[in-house]
Formats: sequence, C-alpha cells, structure tokens
Amino acid sequence: MTGAGTPIADQAAAGWVVGTNGFDPGRMGHRETVFTIGNGNLSLRGTLEEGHPQENPGSFMHRVWDDMDVHATELANLPRWWGLDLWLDDRRVRHEDATGGWRTLDLRTGLLSRAFDWPVAPGVDLLVRHERFISLVEPYGAMLRTTVELSAGVADLRLRVSASAHVENTGRLHWRVVGQSAGEDGLTLVTVTRATGVPLGVVVRPRLSAPAELTAGDADGQPALDYRLTLRAGEQVEIVRSVGIVPALDTELPLNAARDVADRLDALGWPAALAASGEAWSQVWADCDVEIDGDPEAQLSVRYNLFQLNAAAPRFTEDASIGAKTLSGYGYRHHVFWDTESFMLPVFTFTQPDVARNMLAYRCRRLAGARAKAAAAGRSGAQFPWESAGSGAEVTPPWIESVAAGGARMRVWSGDLEVHITADIALAIVQYWTVTGDDAFVREQGAEVVLDGARFWASLARPDADGTYHLRDVVGPDEYHEHVDDNAYTNLLAAWHLRTAEAVLAWLERTAPGQAARLATELAIGPAEREQWARVADHLAAPRVRDGVLEQFAGYFDLDDVDYAKLRSPSRQLSMQVLHGPEGVQRTRTVKQPDVLMLAFQLPNLFDGESLSANYHYYDPRTDHEQGSSLGPAVSSVIATRAGDPAAAYAHFLRAARADLDDVRGNASDGIHGASAGGLWQAVVLGFAGLRVTEDGWTVEPRLPDTWRRLRFAFRHRGVRQVVELLNDH
Amino acid sequence: MTGAGTPIADQAAAGWVVGTNGFDPGRMGHRETVFTIGNGNLSLRGTLEEGHPQENPGSFMHRVWDDMDVHATELANLPRWWGLDLWLDDRRVRHEDATGGWRTLDLRTGLLSRAFDWPVAPGVDLLVRHERFISLVEPYGAMLRTTVELSAGVADLRLRVSASAHVENTGRLHWRVVGQSAGEDGLTLVTVTRATGVPLGVVVRPRLSAPAELTAGDADGQPALDYRLTLRAGEQVEIVRSVGIVPALDTELPLNAARDVADRLDALGWPAALAASGEAWSQVWADCDVEIDGDPEAQLSVRYNLFQLNAAAPRFTEDASIGAKTLSGYGYRHHVFWDTESFMLPVFTFTQPDVARNMLAYRCRRLAGARAKAAAAGRSGAQFPWESAGSGAEVTPPWIESVAAGGARMRVWSGDLEVHITADIALAIVQYWTVTGDDAFVREQGAEVVLDGARFWASLARPDADGTYHLRDVVGPDEYHEHVDDNAYTNLLAAWHLRTAEAVLAWLERTAPGQAARLATELAIGPAEREQWARVADHLAAPRVRDGVLEQFAGYFDLDDVDYAKLRSPSRQLSMQVLHGPEGVQRTRTVKQPDVLMLAFQLPNLFDGESLSANYHYYDPRTDHEQGSSLGPAVSSVIATRAGDPAAAYAHFLRAARADLDDVRGNASDGIHGASAGGLWQAVVLGFAGLRVTEDGWTVEPRLPDTWRRLRFAFRHRGVRQVVELLNDH
Repeated sequence: MTGAGTPIADQAAAGWVVGTNGFDPGRMGHRETVFTIGNGNLSLRGTLEEGHPQENPGSFMHRVWDDMDVHATELANLPRWWGLDLWLDDRRVRHEDATGGWRTLDLRTGLLSRAFDWPVAPGVDLLVRHERFISLVEPYGAMLRTTVELSAGVADLRLRVSASAHVENTGRLHWRVVGQSAGEDGLTLVTVTRATGVPLGVVVRPRLSAPAELTAGDADGQPALDYRLTLRAGEQVEIVRSVGIVPALDTELPLNAARDVADRLDALGWPAALAASGEAWSQVWADCDVEIDGDPEAQLSVRYNLFQLNAAAPRFTEDASIGAKTLSGYGYRHHVFWDTESFMLPVFTFTQPDVARNMLAYRCRRLAGARAKAAAAGRSGAQFPWESAGSGAEVTPPWIESVAAGGARMRVWSGDLEVHITADIALAIVQYWTVTGDDAFVREQGAEVVLDGARFWASLARPDADGTYHLRDVVGPDEYHEHVDDNAYTNLLAAWHLRTAEAVLAWLERTAPGQAARLATELAIGPAEREQWARVADHLAAPRVRDGVLEQFAGYFDLDDVDYAKLRSPSRQLSMQVLHGPEGVQRTRTVKQPDVLMLAFQLPNLFDGESLSANYHYYDPRTDHEQGSSLGPAVSSVIATRAGDPAAAYAHFLRAARADLDDVRGNASDGIHGASAGGLWQAVVLGFAGLRVTEDGWTVEPRLPDTWRRLRFAFRHRGVRQVVELLNDH
Repeated sequence: MTGAGTPIADQAAAGWVVGTNGFDPGRMGHRETVFTIGNGNLSLRGTLEEGHPQENPGSFMHRVWDDMDVHATELANLPRWWGLDLWLDDRRVRHEDATGGWRTLDLRTGLLSRAFDWPVAPGVDLLVRHERFISLVEPYGAMLRTTVELSAGVADLRLRVSASAHVENTGRLHWRVVGQSAGEDGLTLVTVTRATGVPLGVVVRPRLSAPAELTAGDADGQPALDYRLTLRAGEQVEIVRSVGIVPALDTELPLNAARDVADRLDALGWPAALAASGEAWSQVWADCDVEIDGDPEAQLSVRYNLFQLNAAAPRFTEDASIGAKTLSGYGYRHHVFWDTESFMLPVFTFTQPDVARNMLAYRCRRLAGARAKAAAAGRSGAQFPWESAGSGAEVTPPWIESVAAGGARMRVWSGDLEVHITADIALAIVQYWTVTGDDAFVREQGAEVVLDGARFWASLARPDADGTYHLRDVVGPDEYHEHVDDNAYTNLLAAWHLRTAEAVLAWLERTAPGQAARLATELAIGPAEREQWARVADHLAAPRVRDGVLEQFAGYFDLDDVDYAKLRSPSRQLSMQVLHGPEGVQRTRTVKQPDVLMLAFQLPNLFDGESLSANYHYYDPRTDHEQGSSLGPAVSSVIATRAGDPAAAYAHFLRAARADLDDVRGNASDGIHGASAGGLWQAVVLGFAGLRVTEDGWTVEPRLPDTWRRLRFAFRHRGVRQVVELLNDH
C-alpha cells in the first residue's frame, strides 16, 4: 500500500503520497483508518462521501466526550458532515460499481483525493473526483470538493448534500437532535451529547459551479439539499462544501461559531483555503520531517506515521492528549494511556515542544483525578489513571469480552495494578524539561505532578521485616503477567521518581523558593517525608540478576521457559496469551513486550553495554513481537541497535513501520497504533541515529541500516533548531 | 389516571376505558407505558405519531432478539412504523402546542385514541384525531387512522407518512438498513438485526380520503411520503395506514409477507379490520374478565392489568414467554424471570390454558440451556437460568450500575445463586396440570423438565456429617439477603420438587410406560437416584420455628430487627436497601418481599390457619412493601386475606392495582410490572374469592372487600368453563 500505480504526478511526491487502487469492501475498515485526516482537533476517517453498508465511519473532536457502558466514556462520533450522494438519470452512483479508481493521501498538505469512472452506458463514463482536507489553521473547519464530468452524451444529474445526526459509535448513540435546517445558504444541524450535554453546531455551506434546481429535504435529523441539473459531455460540474463544526466548549453559540468558520472558508475559496492549510503543514514538516535516502518504504512509512500523530496532536488546547488509537478509530475509546507519554510524546518534545507542552499540561490539569484515584485506594499523593479521558478519573473497564478468554468476560487488572504510569508521566516531564529547558513549565505545573507522584510511591511501597520495600501485586509493561511482585521496571522507575522528586524540590528551593514553599505547604511535604522518599528509593527491592540478566519480577526465572515451537511458528495468527490462555501464559516466561528492555529504553543509564547486551539476548527471543503488544517493536528496534544487532533492529523497525499501512496485526480498522507511530520516530532518531541529550548538549551515534544512504532530521534543543544530517559511508 | 374528564361516551365504557387529559411531557415515559397496545406478538408503546424530544418509544416483537452489552440480549425496538407528521401552512403540528387534548385506551378492543385542537389563528383550530390498534387476528399487523379538520378558513395541509430505521434501544442500535422504498403504494423498509442477523420487512400502506399532491422522500433509512392538499373548513381528511411487520423467522421472504399483511388489512378497511380484532378481544374477555361491582377503581385496574398481560402473552408461538416488563418497555430487557411462572402464568392457566401451554412450552424447549447452566456449575440435571431470553442460556447481567450502591457497579448474584426458579417452573407445570388435566403436555414435555430439575436439586444439596442436606449460599425470593444458607422457601420447594418428580415418574410408569422408560433411559435415572431424591427430600434442612414462625434462612432470627422508624416513615422515597446500603440491609431482618409468605402462597398445604397467621403477623410488618419488590403486594394481599386481615389485604391489593396506572413506584416508564399485573388477578380470584382447585374439583371461600357488591369471574377447570358469581351480602 505504498503509492504504486496511483497517479503520483511528480518525482517530488514519491516520498509523500500514500495511495491505493481499486475498491475492496473487505478492507474498508483498514482503509478508513489509513486515510484518516485531521488537524489536531477535528478528524475524519477515510469514509466514503456516499457511505457504504460495511463502513465504520468516524469523525472525532478533542474534548467532545460522552458516557458509554463498560469503558465509561469516549469521543462522540460527530454528526455526518461529509455526506454527498450522486444520481445519474436516477441511478445511484457508487464507487463500488466503478472499475478501478484510486485514493491518495498527500502527506504534505493532508489532502485526501479519490477518483473513479462510473459506467453510464457502453463507452460512456461519469468521471467523479472527491477531495477533502481539514484545515490546519481552522481548528473547527474542513472543506470538501467534488467534481463530476460526463465523458459523452447528456444525462440528468442529481446531487445531494446532506448532514446527519443519525451516526453512531459502533452501535451506540451519543447525540440528540436539537435543530436542523436546509436552505439556499446551506445546511445546519444542532445536536447535543446525551450524557454530558455538550451542544454542537454544524454548518455545511455548498457552492455549486453550475445553475441547478434546488430542493430542500427535512427528514428528521437529516437536513439535505438536492441539486438537479442537466450534465453535458465536457462540462465539468464542481461542488465545494465549506464546513464548520463547533462544540459549545469555548463558546455559548456553537451554531454561530460554526457559521463563521464555514463563512471564512467559503470566502477564501478552495484553492486559497487549501493553500493556507498546506502552508501550516509545511511548517509542521519543517519541524519534524525525517529524510531517508535509499529506502523508499522506510521514508514513506516514517512520514505517514508522523502525519497521523500530527493529525491528532492537540495543538489548540491543553485539555486533550492523544489517545492510544489517535483520533482515527474506536479502539480503546480514545483513552489516553502511557502510550502517550512514553511512546508518542518524545517526537513532539524534540520537534514541536509547544504541542508536547499541551500534552503534558493535559496531565497536570488532571491532578485531581489522580489524587482521587490514590485516595480511593487508601494511598497518598497522585496516582495517574491507567486510562484517562476528559475528567482525569480512572476509566479502565473492569472487564472486557476477551478473545484470550474464549469470548468470555475477562477481568482487566490494568486499572488496579498497572501503576507504573505515574512514573512514566514524571519521566516524560523530566525528558521534556531536559530537552527544552522549559523551567517555567516545570515550576508552574510539572513539579507538582512529580512531587505528588512521589508521595504515591512512598505510600504504595511496603517494608518487610528487614527494611526492604516492596511493590507487590502489580502489572508491569508486560501485561501477560499479572499480580506480580517487585516488577523490575516498576521498582526502578519508582526509585528514580522518588529521587527525582527530591531533586526537583531542591531545584525549586534554589531557583523559586516561593513556589517551593507554596508546594511544600499545600502538599504538606516535610523533612520526614523527604527522608522517607530517600529511604524507600534506596531500599526498594532490586531485581535478582543472573548472568547479567535482570529478573523481570520476583519469581520470573522460576517459570517454565517459553514454548519456542509455538512462539516461532511462522503460521501463528494468535497471541501467545490466546494460545496459552490468560492463566497459562502467566506460567511461562513468554512476554507480551520486553519489560526489562523497556526499562533500558526509559532509563538507559542503568545499563552498561555488557548488561544491555545480556538482557537483550535473553529477553528479545522470549517476546511475542508478532502478536504481543504493538508498543514493543519500535523499542525493540532501539535496543537492538544499541546492543549491536542491526538486522534485528531493522526487522523490528519494519514491523512498527508497517503496523497500520500494511495492517500487520489485522486490527488497523480500530485506528492508528499511536504508540507504534511515535516509537517509529524514536527507532530512527534515538536508535539508528543514536541521538542522546546530555547535561552539556547532545550527541549522535549513528548506526544506520545498510540501505540508508542518508538520514536527515531536525529537532529543537533548548529552543534552538538543530539539523542532523548523517551519511552512510560504509 | 382513571378516565375522569375523558370523553367516555357511554355508561358501558366506564369500566373499560383508561384515559388521560392534557399533555405533560414530564410524564411522557409513564404514559408511553400505560398506553402500550399489543396482540401477544407485536406491541407499541403509547408513543406519539409525531415523536417528541423526551419520548422513549418502543415497539417490540416476540423472538426478535439482538445482542447487547451487560444484559446479553434484548428485543430490538422495531423500525418506526407509526410516524406521521402534519404541517399546516408550513407550521409543524404538535400535540404539545395544543391546549388540552385527551387520550383513551379502550380495553374492550385495544383501540388507542388521541385528539387535540391545535391553534391555527385566533378562533381557528385544527382538530386532530389519531387512532391505532394492533390486530389480534393478524400477528404481524396493525392499523392507524388520523383525521384532521379545520374549524374555519382555508389552509395548506402537509401530511408526512414515514417509516424509519433510525430507532434505538435506549441508546443502542440493533438494525442495519438493507433496503427502502417510497411510492404510491406505500413505504417499505428492510432491516436486519446486527448481531443475530434477523431480516425484517416493514410495509406501510397509506390510504388518503382526499386527492393530494404526493412527493416521495428517500433520506437514508427514512422512506417517507409527503401529501399536500388544501384543507377547507368542514372538510374532514382521513388517512388510514395498514402496516405489516414480519421478521424472517417463519418465512424467508419477510417483505412479501409484510406486504400480504398490509394488503389484507387495507382490503378490509379500518372498520372491518378493527371489528375483526375487537371480536377476538371479546373472546379473550369472555375467557378472563373479572367483574367487580361497587369499586370502579378496582374494576378498571383489574381489567387494565389483564389487558396488558394479554397484549404480551404469546398466543402465536411456543418460543416466547412474557418478560418481566411484558412487551411494554426496556426494563429487564424483556428477559423472562420466575415472575412469569409464579405470578403471570396462573391467570392464563385458569382462563386461557392454550396460552399457558405456550408459555410452559417456551421453558420445555429450552431444557438445553438449563442443562448447560447446571453443567457449567458442575451440577447434574437442568438448572433454569434466572433470566432467560431467546436461547435459554443464563442472561442475568453479572453486575449493574446500582442506585443501592450509590451509582457504583453492584454485583448481581441472582444468576449464580437464586436457584429457586427451577422449582418454581416445576410447580407451575404441576399447577397447570392440576387445573387443566392436560396429561399429554406433561407426558410429552413437562415431565422431562420436572425430572431433570429434580436431578439438579439432588446434585446441589450437600449432606453434613449427621446426614442433613443443605442448600448453602443461595438467594431466596427476598433479594435483600444474599449468600444465605437453607432458605426456607428454596429448601421446601426443592423438597416438594424432588417428591413430585418421583410422583411424576411413577405416574408415567403407570400411564405411559414407554415414555417413562424412554425418559429414564435418556436421563439415565435408576433406582439409586430415585432413592437419593427421596433421601434428600426427607433430610433437607428444615427451618427453625419460633412461636410458629418459620425462620427465613439459617441465622435470620439472629439479625438486628427492622429499623421501623425508617421502614414506616411516610416520606420514604427509597428502598430499604438503598437506605441501609446493600451490605447494611443484609444485617437486618428487613425483607424485600415476604419470603416465607411466598412459600405459603406457593405451597399452601404446608401451613395451617394458625401457622399462616403467625407467619403473616411476623413477616408482613418487616416487609418493604412500598419500595421493595413489586412482586410482593399481590401475594401479601392473598396471604392477608387468608390470615383474616381484610384491611391489609385491600391495601396490598390497591398497591398492586395502581403500580402502573398511578406509577406508584416511579419506574412505570420502564414498562408494565407484569408480575404485579398477574398477581392482581390472583389477589382477586385466589385471595378475595378464595378459589382453590382440589383433587375433586374446586371450591371458593369468598372474603370480598366491604365495598364490593358483586364479583364475577370465569375460568376453565379440566377443559370446562366455570363461572363464579359472588354476592357480598353482609
């Protein structure tokens, strides 16, 4: 799925355009995900203008949450604002009835195009082209353009522009209709979310290039305009729709605001509005593009994944972050996991720190939820929820219907036991601080999160008789093993967090004593507590080490070794958890993702070269890379690079690169694998290029894949743009 | 809500018409439930033709199940087949904009009527009247009639007939659209359930009394026909719609079948089709009517509740039974509980044994599900699910979001522990047998259920060291107390069931040795097992008895006594479970429904007059009659009558009688309280009239309420119609 055969006109477009040919309803869900567009606020899956019985459409907007069963809350799929239907001589025109056709997504501008020739009569076709973009300069605006042309003869064209409140989130309704209209100046729809009561205004303003007879349709929840005209060969008819979609979050008059957006886009017109959005995209690419010569697939994949992260990254608000499946599908219901801070955030920290700051501010503004979670469990401080949404409360489902448990209900323990996320967030704040030097952010928002998180760890750790502290009954990054004690990743991150909190507080006392005093008072942190942090950090149970290999958790080495025949079976289609059962896999050393190697990724200074190599060679072969966590491959690539295993590093890199474009896991229809997308940039920049930020500045240690002739990328270090260009001269 | 002020024309209608005046959107849900109509297959809540933002519409059909979260499955709300909108001079006509107006439900025929005067201009009104019925002779057919008339002047009338697939089950979608059409011969819609894949055809055939300009609307999922005409004062315009709705369960061509239904109704025309259905209703009333002189409220309430039971009772299939909320709402998702056999079935057993037989056959045809449930728990035989739907598998939700637990998730133990339902079903079979003498049913279907249920009890009971058997960790009818041991109701019903199984097998051996041998072989029942049944029955732990009072379960007498101040507070709006919390209420003797008295109701021969009185006086005051189970009041009425407490008996009777008409529990919007409705008939016939069927025949022992001058009812005893007329001559 990499541009072959699609109408890519110029050489320059070769590394920038993702395309597909033909029409395959069996891959509809995958393609809806792949062709998602967005502007960091509003998104639209690659859903067809005319709809399809097998579609799973979706358009999402940050902050527009509504309640649901089991998963607590999700972003409400917005009312259908992209609907357009065509009839020629009263026959409905659908892409699926055409032979061929193509779609392309131009990553440079976010323009999605689709064209097909629809057979009218022998030798006569209707040539249809649909284009759309979501404006990067209008948070609430999008445009769509459709052109039709008859290859011969004369026919009656009926063109219906519609909006619809009859949309769903995979079978669940989130909207009630409040009002609607259809008239010469377009369509309006006002809806309100059912549980959270957020009103939303939609305005669709069509502009047709030819005179037509107009009829308004007022079916409940489906305002529509039907244009009828006579189409003659050689006459191209174009309809441009300017769309505004505004929730009543920053305005009390969402319909007026939506009308303003649509008016602005309409006044600019398609070419100018597209150009303005494209200009903004150029700046994004100037900040974050990665150039790879010699490996076209890698080049396009890396850019594609950067595009999808940027399409979802909250550039207009501090009250949203990127969900596990970005804004591109229903998987994990748009909830924010550690995927965001540990996998997606670094690319923004390095290339667009303002966006990274928004994402961290999202967490800082939800400290109340983290404190409530800690308090509910009888702990102190702030424990961030495993899954976070609008309010910051824990929204992990207590159970799901699970393939691994044969379709039965399976208890999900992550919300209760996967505690490491609190340290992951602190680490992300410190990484952001180190790279950007944004003292103000740490002083005003970040420090409080780090300090209150440390209190959580100090209250969670329990001493035994000999004074060793333990974190018992947790889940580490490797979710195949639940209810484990002293997970190495968790314990060592917690110790790091406790020590870092002391360092941050000391820094505050030195540089902002007023703020330090305020925080110490508000949080009631006294000397005794700071001593307790140090004591817990120093005495948290250390993992057993055998031949240089850290034990993933207490007792891991005593488990049955991996069933390598199963793990390495080339025909394996199921995860090792499904094959063994959720209980069975816990009795083996098979890991869903390499937990200890993730520790090496997060805190590289804990490992020297020898230790890294020993752990890599032990854990990498025991990992379910194919069907385990999609978070694993990119990290595995970085570690393999560092451990001197370039072939494995490249194979892991490709697995991450192809996750969505080639649907290697078969679940891309649920949405983009955001952590894999973010990890991919890290595999290139932190892995192959070996970028490291130090106290004094930054260094690279390039170990490029053989085929890569040149690698070029930019980032910002303490506010200053840096460009790195690496040539592979071996 | 009893007819006052409504246009009840004749004296004869007085005891037969339920009506309401005005328009109160705050009571919309309640009135939708109250004005539900149905024919034992298809139902329609009292939803307005033109819809309303606060509506919770619903039209259900037996057997049309689809999957849902948490509750597993529910009947899919059918595509909207009743939609009709009016515009006068382009202003939309809605009931809520009218002053006054009324609705009546004529219980004699099932005709629902609504009329209002809509203000056009000062002194000018549009007179609107809507009528509808679901045909008792067409399982899949309904008709609607609308008449409009202008009181003065001339205006443009627009009348839209529509169908819509955009319907929901409280926020959940069950249908996909397969096809639709709108044309001169009406509307069609073909949909299919999403999970179970049941296609459904809908045909709406309109017939307008005046010429009009016609436009077809084809919005997705909403076929519509718009009629436009000029309305002049004094000209009445009438539109009649004939509707067919057929699922692909007994046919492969549901749309054709639906068209046939609509054609038949259309050919008959409104008066004849209504008369045919009314004739069938007359027969139902001849079978089951209860006449009460001297108490108009009791008269209308009893008939109303009988109407609602009959509207839902499966008269056309053996594959459906009546759900806890009949076919009138979303409460309990149409699942079948013990409510059906123990509360609703008796009225049918006595008055319409064919319907009762269908309901019992529904259980017999689901033995596989009951066996699977027993096997899954490591038990033998057949354990009927606490909640049953299409397949017969257990569909009780494992948890619900509970008011009692402060909105948090609350574990529902009934599916695991409320085992008594297996004996309740056996008892219902035996009661049916006793009243009807239907040996063939018992021989061919019922016996197997009774026998396999006995095996379940024998495998569930556990002996202790002294040879006493126990049923531990159960929930009895009083659901305030969970995880109890040796619940008196359960143990004594189980013992009865075990002995009855032996008696049934002996009867079979005597009267149908072939069938007896077949069953004994198929079920592998040998002499040892039959001895085991007797041993368990004889040694099942008997309840402690104190001053003649049976202890509800082991340890009940040791609990704190009831908080009478709370229980008797006249301002109490919450159940005792909510007030105490689910854990707290378990530590008290407060009961949700009178468990031991329910035993006296089910197995009256276990109690003599003195014992009944002792238990009544002990348990009745400890029962949360107001906010506990809606199953309680009718049974309490019967027991109070037998215990010689007529004032309490009548108060309990009224509580059941008003449950839905007056919404005494505030949840009537969820649907009719079916068990209360069925219990009401029992309160009258088994309570006040004292009907008892004996070995030799039947007897009555009337103790009528003071105000009742005459009570008349009919039933069938062993195939022969019996009429009982009791005069109150005190």
